[in-house]
Amino acid sequence: MTGPSRKILVGVLGATGAVGQRMVSLLARHPWFDLVELAASERSAGRTYGEAASWRLADPLPDAIARMRVRALDPGTGSFRARILFSALDADVAGEAESRLASAGHAVVSNAKNHRMAADVPLVIAEVNREHLALIPAQRRRLGSEGFIVTNPNCSSTGLTMALAPIHERFGVASVVAATLQAVSGAGYPGLPSMDILDNAVPYISGEEEKIEREPRKMLGRLAAGAGEVDEAAIEIAAMVHRVPVVDGHLVSAFVTTRERADPAAVLAAWREWSQARALDLPTAPAEPLLYLEAPDRPQTRLDRERGGGMTTSIGRLRPVPGGALRFACLSHNTLRGAAGASVLNAELLVREKYVS
Amino acid sequence: MTGPSRKILVGVLGATGAVGQRMVSLLARHPWFDLVELAASERSAGRTYGEAASWRLADPLPDAIARMRVRALDPGTGSFRARILFSALDADVAGEAESRLASAGHAVVSNAKNHRMAADVPLVIAEVNREHLALIPAQRRRLGSEGFIVTNPNCSSTGLTMALAPIHERFGVASVVAATLQAVSGAGYPGLPSMDILDNAVPYISGEEEKIEREPRKMLGRLAAGAGEVDEAAIEIAAMVHRVPVVDGHLVSAFVTTRERADPAAVLAAWREWSQARALDLPTAPAEPLLYLEAPDRPQTRLDRERGGGMTTSIGRLRPVPGGALRFACLSHNTLRGAAGASVLNAELLVREKYVS
Amino acid sequence: MTGPSRKILVGVLGATGAVGQRMVSLLARHPWFDLVELAASERSAGRTYGEAASWRLADPLPDAIARMRVRALDPGTGSFRARILFSALDADVAGEAESRLASAGHAVVSNAKNHRMAADVPLVIAEVNREHLALIPAQRRRLGSEGFIVTNPNCSSTGLTMALAPIHERFGVASVVAATLQAVSGAGYPGLPSMDILDNAVPYISGEEEKIEREPRKMLGRLAAGAGEVDEAAIEIAAMVHRVPVVDGHLVSAFVTTRERADPAAVLAAWREWSQARALDLPTAPAEPLLYLEAPDRPQTRLDRERGGGMTTSIGRLRPVPGGALRFACLSHNTLRGAAGASVLNAELLVREKYVS
Amino acid sequence: MTGPSRKILVGVLGATGAVGQRMVSLLARHPWFDLVELAASERSAGRTYGEAASWRLADPLPDAIARMRVRALDPGTGSFRARILFSALDADVAGEAESRLASAGHAVVSNAKNHRMAADVPLVIAEVNREHLALIPAQRRRLGSEGFIVTNPNCSSTGLTMALAPIHERFGVASVVAATLQAVSGAGYPGLPSMDILDNAVPYISGEEEKIEREPRKMLGRLAAGAGEVDEAAIEIAAMVHRVPVVDGHLVSAFVTTRERADPAAVLAAWREWSQARALDLPTAPAEPLLYLEAPDRPQTRLDRERGGGMTTSIGRLRPVPGGALRFACLSHNTLRGAAGASVLNAELLVREKYVS
Repeated sequence: MTGPSRKILVGVLGATGAVGQRMVSLLARHPWFDLVELAASERSAGRTYGEAASWRLADPLPDAIARMRVRALDPGTGSFRARILFSALDADVAGEAESRLASAGHAVVSNAKNHRMAADVPLVIAEVNREHLALIPAQRRRLGSEGFIVTNPNCSSTGLTMALAPIHERFGVASVVAATLQAVSGAGYPGLPSMDILDNAVPYISGEEEKIEREPRKMLGRLAAGAGEVDEAAIEIAAMVHRVPVVDGHLVSAFVTTRERADPAAVLAAWREWSQARALDLPTAPAEPLLYLEAPDRPQTRLDRERGGGMTTSIGRLRPVPGGALRFACLSHNTLRGAAGASVLNAELLVREKYVS
Repeated sequence: MTGPSRKILVGVLGATGAVGQRMVSLLARHPWFDLVELAASERSAGRTYGEAASWRLADPLPDAIARMRVRALDPGTGSFRARILFSALDADVAGEAESRLASAGHAVVSNAKNHRMAADVPLVIAEVNREHLALIPAQRRRLGSEGFIVTNPNCSSTGLTMALAPIHERFGVASVVAATLQAVSGAGYPGLPSMDILDNAVPYISGEEEKIEREPRKMLGRLAAGAGEVDEAAIEIAAMVHRVPVVDGHLVSAFVTTRERADPAAVLAAWREWSQARALDLPTAPAEPLLYLEAPDRPQTRLDRERGGGMTTSIGRLRPVPGGALRFACLSHNTLRGAAGASVLNAELLVREKYVS
Repeated sequence: MTGPSRKILVGVLGATGAVGQRMVSLLARHPWFDLVELAASERSAGRTYGEAASWRLADPLPDAIARMRVRALDPGTGSFRARILFSALDADVAGEAESRLASAGHAVVSNAKNHRMAADVPLVIAEVNREHLALIPAQRRRLGSEGFIVTNPNCSSTGLTMALAPIHERFGVASVVAATLQAVSGAGYPGLPSMDILDNAVPYISGEEEKIEREPRKMLGRLAAGAGEVDEAAIEIAAMVHRVPVVDGHLVSAFVTTRERADPAAVLAAWREWSQARALDLPTAPAEPLLYLEAPDRPQTRLDRERGGGMTTSIGRLRPVPGGALRFACLSHNTLRGAAGASVLNAELLVREKYVS
Repeated sequence: MTGPSRKILVGVLGATGAVGQRMVSLLARHPWFDLVELAASERSAGRTYGEAASWRLADPLPDAIARMRVRALDPGTGSFRARILFSALDADVAGEAESRLASAGHAVVSNAKNHRMAADVPLVIAEVNREHLALIPAQRRRLGSEGFIVTNPNCSSTGLTMALAPIHERFGVASVVAATLQAVSGAGYPGLPSMDILDNAVPYISGEEEKIEREPRKMLGRLAAGAGEVDEAAIEIAAMVHRVPVVDGHLVSAFVTTRERADPAAVLAAWREWSQARALDLPTAPAEPLLYLEAPDRPQTRLDRERGGGMTTSIGRLRPVPGGALRFACLSHNTLRGAAGASVLNAELLVREKYVS
């Protein structure tokens, strides 16, 4: 693949949290990006990253990154020099900070929920709807800046949307009932107390069902004429979310009705063809965005979450329901494909499509 | 409550397994029953129960039971003297053995799946459909014996059926999509290898979805004229089952459409009224068969499975779906309410209703 | 057993935390005590207990307690009317608050570490060293009050000290190497993040090794002449602590050298005789303070922690080491025997021994 | 590094089990070895490896290996053509089969326990005691064959022995008390039932303590004059083993007394220097055989087990004990460094040292 002629300076906002650490891990040895800035809350500012972050990944933190000094997000602490700012900020600060930094000319590639549903902000899974990046010019006009915000979806929306995309394209999805089994890392760090999840399952995650019911509609929608917004897909989604005692990986079981009759063989073919056609030649993109597993008991969270470097969505258990509906299970790694990896892949796409140079 | 004038002799078949141990635990100090026989496979026969059973319950095994000698199931080893035989047999031996013992005059109260769907065999949750015990005379005629078989449903069908029953009675249930999060104890002992479930979730349990899709239809059905069979309820059920790393407790999230419009307040009222009306005055029956929990994040497996001595089904998270459907989560203890406790409660009901004396 | 002629008014300080909840649970239906006051931090003050406490126990919170109003600890909010105040306060506030309340005339029965090692403060396991309550008169003189403080040991010291006591009495313990496997509930709530313990073991708990190395020496020591302090036992203890992913129950493996030769049979006899001789006739005391389990693979955390209502310390795996040392494993429930239950039992002892009336 | 001039044919015995799968995974893309034979029990013989093995690793099984036909171990099924046979056989068959195959001329590199303590069989950790390979000529004479057996130690002995080796060399280890926290994968597959370990810790693993108490003595011993056997090191080891609910990784806390006074700084230096001096330039060898982690709460099982591709032993928490003893914690990946990786590394060493060509 052809990368940029020289490395692009990037920074991470909210660098000390669970998603921020994953971003740092992916960017530390990235072939296209040079990680030069790490920002976090006032509490961390001024400390080295090694001190400020309670590093929770098995992949060791490189020494050079550990020695970097964490800066505050606060505009009073000066401007950022990074061209791309990856945002793993908490929702309570992301909204204002991301707007400000986009207005100041940065490409803000965000995992935060705040701007996902704004009309001119692309909500993108690289293989699913990269044509939505065409919203950027409208956004730039609104902001009066070369900067902009691009977002990726919630960790539990991601795998489901990838699995639905080929079905929607070919048969039209009418409705979805989705039940999730979500990993604790999705709640960040410190996140969920261990007393709340050991030997337990919890049928509730604040705000999560709303995201799953809304975000796929935008991603599977069409750019409206004029490219200033997206016409959401008319899919009725009902979600039932659960937290379970696994470290990483969100498993989703979906019950789907389609507008045109979709038999399992045709759906399998749609998945396979879509996966081949949409695979991207980018550093963080997996060779197989979707992978169907034939074994009757897969995908399984621990055994399949790392496929494709954590960027492949595994699907299995496709089986019909009397009456014509379909059922299947899909799995994606929530902090890679569903968060940090999604952001980094979106940034790579922005570079290749010349939105950032 | 009024019990029998003298204790009734009972035995447990398949006494060394996970469900068998729960049966033994419930029967060891039962006010109505006197546990006099324990049967298991050839491998265990002749050993004391303490030696043969690898006791896995925190509730200690009473010494008197530990010293009882385990006998074989084999008819060559002589007849049973127990009036009621509780069956926790594996499906590969339960079918033939239970038929034989019922024909020999025993009341066989079974947790095995083999006879559940037979036309004249009651499949009963005591609070839901005790009127189905009226199938017994027809069964006795077929067997030409005073004996009979009564079954309880699969552990994952139980809680769901209890939660659906009041809705079905009042509004008519048209369809259900059910996603389960099931405990490892549901697979028996040794059951699931630890390597298969630690830090993992598995979207498959052999044969389980079929049971969930079929058994509630029978239990929520009506006795046909002549009382020789049950007209199954016309409910379309689609199940998506998952094994999760919890010890005990099956959590089910359900998406339900009704024939008549059912708003959440009316459903809450139906549950509450049904729970009061159907509570049974029997030793193993809970004061509240159904309990709705108001907190937005309940029921939770570890925190709620022991309610009502493990016999209460907890419900929570009732919320509407645009278009009129309903969603909720329900939880029941799989080896108590969903297996051993269900059998013992059915036996108590048989005594009170004079099918056993 | 003979209790007080009328119920004694009691309160709980730090009532909303993990240990505080266990205290409330034990006191809610206590035959001798009437729970009339619940105090917690400023954040909780003024709210009902049901709102302020995120109740984490499977044992449901009684409605009457849920409706009680939580008060602040702050002296400005007025005096307490409870005769006995159970303290589950955090160490950063316990020191000053407990001293103040003892000086104000209350019997403070504390689980906090702050005063455990003070010369005239009894550090007591009821069955092990109740004679240390004789320190109370000296403490009362120092405080110039009828009030006093009595403490129980750290949750990981408790089971070990109970198992060592009979050996020390009969053979003299010279040295101990103790390795612990501790439950997450020992860290309180929210306590340990789930990301830190799922699929993980951690060889570190802040401050824990120091407690295990010091507290048993005081409890196994002798009251000095004059009864103003305890001569600590000369036992060298080296601890190696670990946090493991279990909900409740601290398992400790101990390697012990004795001053006089102690063969396993003699140690077994010492445990058995001690357990019979020291069992207390008090509401929270177990029939068997120590229980030796013969099975080669016991005690196990989940299977044995609830023995004796969570107040029995289970021991197993006694086996010699070449050279004369001994090894064994012991288990106690950390929030019952090791915290809340220990405090309640100490209070019962104080009533029976007339330190409180 | 310089490898063999052409790839050496290798096979795996017991290929379908947990350790066998790890061996296959390591050999599937090995630069020196060509995996040509897979043997397993009669039950698996004749099936493809993909069908016979219930693949439990996140690292996907290569298709070419999945299509290989599994053969029986039985000599009646013909001779093996592999030069090196890796053995992950169960102990009940390993003894006879390995002897037979060594006598038939194969280099048998075994993870089984059967021959570990035989006088002329090297028990080797590549970085610790490769000089023990000098036992091979004596063994060849005994067998009357070019073949021989080389073994690696038990998974829980491995990390401990690596951590002890530098201390023993410099200061002489007199005694060790070792407490282990071992992963479920150490019990193989299906191995430990999930009911036995979820929310549980078990202070027992059959036969494990004996291995830990014996194997390090041999590995840290000196080749006797004549090189026909090893004089075991005179170290008294007492082990207390525990199974905990983690997937992979054995954590060991050790309490060590030395013959010469060893202060922590000197031990740290010994570890560091040894790790640099003993690092091997072989495909499976880690750059750092030992790595000391400065953070007070490390090593942790999930976070550190994958270091050095699962071949680095991490050490932490070195702290003195009053009286001159030492304490520390060490961690190694039980199925890589402690089993399959150890065998593969031993085979690489055999090639480099010309025992196999």
